[in-house]
Amino acid sequence: MNDTSTAGQTIKSRAAVAFAAGKPLEIVDIDVAPPKAGEVRVRITHTGVCHTDAFTLSGDDPEGLFPVVLGHEGAGIVVDVGEGVTSVKPGDHVIPLYTAECGECLFCKSGKTNLCTSVRATQGKGVMPDGTSRFSYEGKPLYHYMGCSTFSEYTVVAEVSLAKINPDANPEHVCLLGCGVTTGIGAVHNTAKVQEGDSVAVFGLGGIGLAVIQGARQAKAGRIIAIDTNPSKFEMAKEFGASDCVNPKEYDKPIQEVIVEMTGWGVDHSFECIGNVNVMRAALECAHRGWGQSVIIGVAGAGQEISTRPFQLVTGRKWMGTAFGGVKGRSQLPGMVEDAMKGDIQLAPFVTHTMPLDGINEAFDLMHEGKSIRSVVHY
Amino acid sequence: MNDTSTAGQTIKSRAAVAFAAGKPLEIVDIDVAPPKAGEVRVRITHTGVCHTDAFTLSGDDPEGLFPVVLGHEGAGIVVDVGEGVTSVKPGDHVIPLYTAECGECLFCKSGKTNLCTSVRATQGKGVMPDGTSRFSYEGKPLYHYMGCSTFSEYTVVAEVSLAKINPDANPEHVCLLGCGVTTGIGAVHNTAKVQEGDSVAVFGLGGIGLAVIQGARQAKAGRIIAIDTNPSKFEMAKEFGASDCVNPKEYDKPIQEVIVEMTGWGVDHSFECIGNVNVMRAALECAHRGWGQSVIIGVAGAGQEISTRPFQLVTGRKWMGTAFGGVKGRSQLPGMVEDAMKGDIQLAPFVTHTMPLDGINEAFDLMHEGKSIRSVVHY
Repeated sequence: MNDTSTAGQTIKSRAAVAFAAGKPLEIVDIDVAPPKAGEVRVRITHTGVCHTDAFTLSGDDPEGLFPVVLGHEGAGIVVDVGEGVTSVKPGDHVIPLYTAECGECLFCKSGKTNLCTSVRATQGKGVMPDGTSRFSYEGKPLYHYMGCSTFSEYTVVAEVSLAKINPDANPEHVCLLGCGVTTGIGAVHNTAKVQEGDSVAVFGLGGIGLAVIQGARQAKAGRIIAIDTNPSKFEMAKEFGASDCVNPKEYDKPIQEVIVEMTGWGVDHSFECIGNVNVMRAALECAHRGWGQSVIIGVAGAGQEISTRPFQLVTGRKWMGTAFGGVKGRSQLPGMVEDAMKGDIQLAPFVTHTMPLDGINEAFDLMHEGKSIRSVVHY
Repeated sequence: MNDTSTAGQTIKSRAAVAFAAGKPLEIVDIDVAPPKAGEVRVRITHTGVCHTDAFTLSGDDPEGLFPVVLGHEGAGIVVDVGEGVTSVKPGDHVIPLYTAECGECLFCKSGKTNLCTSVRATQGKGVMPDGTSRFSYEGKPLYHYMGCSTFSEYTVVAEVSLAKINPDANPEHVCLLGCGVTTGIGAVHNTAKVQEGDSVAVFGLGGIGLAVIQGARQAKAGRIIAIDTNPSKFEMAKEFGASDCVNPKEYDKPIQEVIVEMTGWGVDHSFECIGNVNVMRAALECAHRGWGQSVIIGVAGAGQEISTRPFQLVTGRKWMGTAFGGVKGRSQLPGMVEDAMKGDIQLAPFVTHTMPLDGINEAFDLMHEGKSIRSVVHY
């Protein structure tokens, strides 16, 4: 499908706009300008609703800008492309990337990280690489978000921020590879590099934590200990491969001591999938003496800090973190979509709720109430 | 030289005993009982005086026990051996190890760490593996220290705590491989795994920091940035291979910002060689976005904690630590002694002062005044 009729024109688009921090999103028709050089206009067909969207909407994100089109976990189809764009064309199925991959910057060329800097500075300011926005409402600009803005039916993203995927993939499922599931699975393989037989502890059984469990099972981990204060999460954790489920509320002692006692010396790998700095400490301190490592995935509140005794590191533990699971979006995400199509990555169980764009505020409510893993909005 | 005449007998030994925290050491004649099964009696010929001895002597070490025979950086000759000892015999030249290597425990067998647990529990309690001391003064037991107690001319150590070395090595120099120099060089090769061309920042230019610089030059690191508030250390840092020397007192901004600006995005590896938790934070935060790693070597005061924003880790930095530079003493230290004999490790420049045992308190004074790198005591 080539929507070439709209090339070069501003399009009206239904969007869920965050006009102010702490307020519900409003469904309005916005204007989406055509893509400039190096940019691509995409029709989003599905988008997940993630905790990071909620964090920014709450006003707690010090870098949050309003009014803004949130959303960063989507799937869609290319509508039209700006000058010089060669890697995608109208009709291509794509996943927008909040972690771009230009292949040219110091970071892309290093082979050591996925943290491309090509569009980083402007993305953080809520604008396109030329410093301006493609979104407006009643003549006033709206900010972009994380380089994606998937809460608008039509969006504009940088070419380097698009992974081209198999058009036969189910977009209601693979949109989740735009953030949470990829982050969790990638953290296991790219950041921690879990090996067969290794023990793993997963703190927090939301979408990312469940994806970590799935990644750990792919890696043939030995013991997989799932930890959450909400025991209703345990059933799915076990389905995905958890061998033990632990509720910290059932113990008088710190959870790191519980895990160390369960395992002898701690786990080979631990993952913090919540964004709570106290849990980050617990996750580090339950890592195995001598070689255990702990990966921070969750995003902590503004100004919050992690701490521990340096002795924890001197006795061999490593503390690290991950963004987008260390996955290089354009190189690696298409392969993960293929894995999902083959069933090697299970996505359907994550989608506990679906709704039209009009119902998007309900998706936030379900998340805050702990009732959903992921809600997916259909345009 | 086989002192077999003393086998099975208690020996009188000159020793510098720490009778109480915060008091100078006293030179007295103590009694050293013969080695029990799995133990070895060693005549120490040379011992370095290290910050860790001073830390315990100060009383700030919560695990410090008194009265005690301190010292853990020595070289000596085996006098007699207990039942079942096969790896050394009287006359062998040895370096005592505060990090044992049994080859049998979970940790030794892992291939991932040097943190052997074979004698760990009793060593921490200041006694031999059978729970008793071989040292006494006027009939009352004295504690052992770090499994070595090199501040006594005769000491008893576990067989697993002895590296057998080339008898032609200069003991005044290679005694420093018992702690500081090995820790610094080992941290570069075993913990950080510095590669050719990598950039390095070294915080603190005492013996360990200078050894890190030497290790970095061995690894063919690119830029080596040496950092100290005492600029009198810079000359030797440059001799060992530092390319830049930075005094944080000359800047109004935090030192991590200075290093990041000097390098663009930070250094590939940083090393904290002081034991200051604020410097540990600075060392982490000057590590390169995406892949930089920071190694804690210094020992912080009791109860002190490190902290940072988790964002530092999520954007790709790794925080780790090292003990004895990750070196497996019995397997690897003999080779490092050979390296020193060939000149691949330079030890002579570290030995800024020598003195007889009677002068050992002066060694502590010189260290506290920042006038020495290492003082070596000759028995």
